[in-house]
Amino acid sequence: MSSYYLNFRNSIPWLILFLEIVFLVRFFFTGVNDIYQSFSSYPAFQDVNHMVIFGFGFFLMVLRRYGFSSTAFNFLIIVLGVQCSVLVEDFFFFSFSFFSCSLAKGLVSVTAVVISTGAVLGKANPLQLIVMTLVELIVFNVSRWINRTFLKVPYNLTLMHVHLFGAYFGLAVASRFPEPPPGLDKNRSTPKSDLFSVLGTVFVWVFWPSFNSVLTDAKKEAVLNTYFALAVSAVTAFMLSALTSKDGKFRMSHLHSAVLAGGVTISYTAPSISHPWIAMILGLLGSVITILGSHCLQRCLNPPLKIQDTCGVHFTFGLPAVLGALAAVVLCVVKEGTRAQWNNLSSLGFLIFFDVGAFCQTISTALVTGFITGLILNIKLLKIVPVSKYFDDQFYWEVSF
Amino acid sequence: MSSYYLNFRNSIPWLILFLEIVFLVRFFFTGVNDIYQSFSSYPAFQDVNHMVIFGFGFFLMVLRRYGFSSTAFNFLIIVLGVQCSVLVEDFFFFSFSFFSCSLAKGLVSVTAVVISTGAVLGKANPLQLIVMTLVELIVFNVSRWINRTFLKVPYNLTLMHVHLFGAYFGLAVASRFPEPPPGLDKNRSTPKSDLFSVLGTVFVWVFWPSFNSVLTDAKKEAVLNTYFALAVSAVTAFMLSALTSKDGKFRMSHLHSAVLAGGVTISYTAPSISHPWIAMILGLLGSVITILGSHCLQRCLNPPLKIQDTCGVHFTFGLPAVLGALAAVVLCVVKEGTRAQWNNLSSLGFLIFFDVGAFCQTISTALVTGFITGLILNIKLLKIVPVSKYFDDQFYWEVSF
Amino acid sequence: MSSYYLNFRNSIPWLILFLEIVFLVRFFFTGVNDIYQSFSSYPAFQDVNHMVIFGFGFFLMVLRRYGFSSTAFNFLIIVLGVQCSVLVEDFFFFSFSFFSCSLAKGLVSVTAVVISTGAVLGKANPLQLIVMTLVELIVFNVSRWINRTFLKVPYNLTLMHVHLFGAYFGLAVASRFPEPPPGLDKNRSTPKSDLFSVLGTVFVWVFWPSFNSVLTDAKKEAVLNTYFALAVSAVTAFMLSALTSKDGKFRMSHLHSAVLAGGVTISYTAPSISHPWIAMILGLLGSVITILGSHCLQRCLNPPLKIQDTCGVHFTFGLPAVLGALAAVVLCVVKEGTRAQWNNLSSLGFLIFFDVGAFCQTISTALVTGFITGLILNIKLLKIVPVSKYFDDQFYWEVSF
Repeated sequence: MSSYYLNFRNSIPWLILFLEIVFLVRFFFTGVNDIYQSFSSYPAFQDVNHMVIFGFGFFLMVLRRYGFSSTAFNFLIIVLGVQCSVLVEDFFFFSFSFFSCSLAKGLVSVTAVVISTGAVLGKANPLQLIVMTLVELIVFNVSRWINRTFLKVPYNLTLMHVHLFGAYFGLAVASRFPEPPPGLDKNRSTPKSDLFSVLGTVFVWVFWPSFNSVLTDAKKEAVLNTYFALAVSAVTAFMLSALTSKDGKFRMSHLHSAVLAGGVTISYTAPSISHPWIAMILGLLGSVITILGSHCLQRCLNPPLKIQDTCGVHFTFGLPAVLGALAAVVLCVVKEGTRAQWNNLSSLGFLIFFDVGAFCQTISTALVTGFITGLILNIKLLKIVPVSKYFDDQFYWEVSF
Repeated sequence: MSSYYLNFRNSIPWLILFLEIVFLVRFFFTGVNDIYQSFSSYPAFQDVNHMVIFGFGFFLMVLRRYGFSSTAFNFLIIVLGVQCSVLVEDFFFFSFSFFSCSLAKGLVSVTAVVISTGAVLGKANPLQLIVMTLVELIVFNVSRWINRTFLKVPYNLTLMHVHLFGAYFGLAVASRFPEPPPGLDKNRSTPKSDLFSVLGTVFVWVFWPSFNSVLTDAKKEAVLNTYFALAVSAVTAFMLSALTSKDGKFRMSHLHSAVLAGGVTISYTAPSISHPWIAMILGLLGSVITILGSHCLQRCLNPPLKIQDTCGVHFTFGLPAVLGALAAVVLCVVKEGTRAQWNNLSSLGFLIFFDVGAFCQTISTALVTGFITGLILNIKLLKIVPVSKYFDDQFYWEVSF
Repeated sequence: MSSYYLNFRNSIPWLILFLEIVFLVRFFFTGVNDIYQSFSSYPAFQDVNHMVIFGFGFFLMVLRRYGFSSTAFNFLIIVLGVQCSVLVEDFFFFSFSFFSCSLAKGLVSVTAVVISTGAVLGKANPLQLIVMTLVELIVFNVSRWINRTFLKVPYNLTLMHVHLFGAYFGLAVASRFPEPPPGLDKNRSTPKSDLFSVLGTVFVWVFWPSFNSVLTDAKKEAVLNTYFALAVSAVTAFMLSALTSKDGKFRMSHLHSAVLAGGVTISYTAPSISHPWIAMILGLLGSVITILGSHCLQRCLNPPLKIQDTCGVHFTFGLPAVLGALAAVVLCVVKEGTRAQWNNLSSLGFLIFFDVGAFCQTISTALVTGFITGLILNIKLLKIVPVSKYFDDQFYWEVSF
């Protein structure tokens, strides 16, 4: 094997060192009180931290020979990303009133990167992942800033676009990577990797109410609505898995993608929904769209469009997030409409325009910048992985047998 | 293999869909404030949720070829059961003063079903498990309602009968299932499944203080007493394991059943015990009765009585719960007797009568209804699993190797 | 195999029973209010409990054939040690004002034993481990008492010497064990055990802010400083791993030791540091010293000095703790010096003398008593394990295949 591909020794350490020095300098010039006084709720932060590092670490462990890299690179991206995120958010939302609880916000932002990682899992090397982390966090904060400033999205809700942004950014990036050769079987899962991956999913499931409620003030509503949506989507996942498979057997990959759908669908509206049955219907629809989506996309859409998506982030996070966006618009319109007794239709039109605009802006920014990022990642300087070495731990790790 | 046995496609999805519609309709007609205002302590709820889903999911993973089903069906039962439990409890205890914190109560009730599942693990198919979940939750709430209304058991303590009820209900149900053929080795464990199962047990161990304290007001006492009882029973489990095995080696199955015994034993009395040494003695006795019980039952009692018990729920949850019931009666009598200086013996007699009556009512209701449920589950309509397919993941899952 | 080595049946159970009776008697004579009223923060206690039992249980799972023993003996040591620790601390610090929150303190003290276990992992049998637990907890409390009484270390900081004490005590004990024969390959790791071990490390990583903040009043500062130090040390671990290995590949053993270094380094100073960048620099230095230390020690220092260290506790906990001690002295001197405008140099000298003295006292007590304990543990009465049976589960467990 050519040493050209292998040797990350002259690139990764220095890139990481450079980033750390930047972070150090930035924290050196930060007022002390900003950091310490704004940190409010440790248990909620702890839950989200635990969920992002462990849950997604296992969630990504679907490939048979990529367990080390899945979990370890996920960990690296999160710890780098949180620091980077604090820096970037500071730059875009510089104001004392906005600067509360920034570590928790950093963790939520980083989730976008983790979701994008799922689309390029096994294809991107650590160098590409670090560059992608930096670019994605900057672009995501630009997109949030546009949403906040021009489209009047409430500050905390801008962060909830994280699934939408992460999924479509990841898909656009992945489309620029060379395709794995057809005979390669390393991108299949084994029963053991399936089991770990579903355990990770259930882990994320357990902590999802904390994730949806960490930044909101209506914590009680957010937690309960999320729990109901998650419960219904988990049950629906079993139902649809038995319904769509041969012989009525269950399939792990269905559970892997659909049990979380309810939590993603309800992420925009969890604090504002006032009836559990609405949350339950959203959970049901989220799960349905995910499983139908996974069938349609994998069979009909992906092959002609050459969409690559190792972990299925499109139907796991993308489609439910789109559904949730639609639901958010509908619920908002119904609420405002009922309050004004459907008199002021032009103001409702404005509302719809702004809401739909925000979601379209997020998706289109994600797709365009993801596409460009994908092109950047595939320049020779970043040591593209040869397709025969895709999905392989031994390429990155000194493994002793 | 006959397709008659295999095809759950026409039954499971529609049963689940029907249940979800019932839940949706019920929540549609619920007052909003009941749900949201009554939800008080998220961290405690989160702990119990985490413990029930993860701890018991791994706890049940004792069989060598049943890992997928153990964890996934446990998850399905819990998410269905919590919704069902809120519905059923609402029906039996309909009153605003009782309706606080209902999701946490739902989770605690569902533990009865999870324990019963351990007795029929690998023998019941998902259809039977769902039916069992429904029947058991209804019967358990009937039994609680009898305890509450006629036998004057405090409301929160009625929920602590969950181990007693779950274990004996499960045993009665399991007795109606056909026995596995003697040569079948799929119901044995491997070192790996043993390890996962013990990890699950330790997980449950860590969260047990949260479980015992989630519904009580005397949280501090409940947590500390439970911790002391658990610590002593864990140490005793090691001691007895070395004492009862050949060569003084340890045995994983002993730890699996005995480290939790202290927590089960003290579940009724954790909030009211006022000296740690009483909790420690209860933990010690719980562990002793579990290990002795596992030896006696597995060798002497189970074969002639044809008792089937895949996971050993009889000695893991049943016997310590009986011991705990006796301890609760004794402690209550001593307390009341000391207070009245042993003058009013007839009132003490009444007290004993009511307390013992409540526990006997729980056990007998569990046994009788469990027996009937076992008969119902084995009608042909529910697609009984052929004994040769017991304990096998491939019967329910599309597994790709 | 001679039955002399095997049979723990006549020793372990009776030793455990004797200890339990001692604990019971001690709790029988304790005032009730001491225990219950002093227990303040359940969530923090729960986090530390979870971390110590699960995190360290997996952290120690580095050996290929020692998974059962690593986790189960860790669990046994912790549950015995917590009870023992409450007893011992009660004896040395008997005072109502000191006696708050004693279970959490017990857990923190036990961490010293868990760290020492890492040095003798696979060599010490359970009997030796129990004796070591008792001796170490007593000696650690003596050392804390000296620090508190003569060297004016604040009460809560005396507990933070736990890493320093545990690592050097463990090394001294391990030096008295016979060396494994050179051909033995059971002390190597497999990719699977490496993965579990790193997962345990990440688990400890996630909960480390809880550990550093559980006993302090400045919780917010302790949590944030620890998180920053941990994040930087995790990133640095990846950086140095790529830099020091051939071809720029990552090595799991580097992550295993270095991601935690920041948390250990900052353990003394987490509540008092007032700028995040100081915490970040400490995390960076901790990670650097750990990876450099692991290279130097394993290649140059350990073979001539015949130091044995199965889990690498010297560079994982020992060296970062020494660095943290130096940092604590420097930060304290700078702070006091700045306050007094560098006028009162003799008082600064005193300060340095006391601070350095406390750390030297801890290390030297650990080394001397560890050496003596190692001699005691290797008397014939404690059934020394033959070197050919090192690192082997089958020696202690009835394993069924």
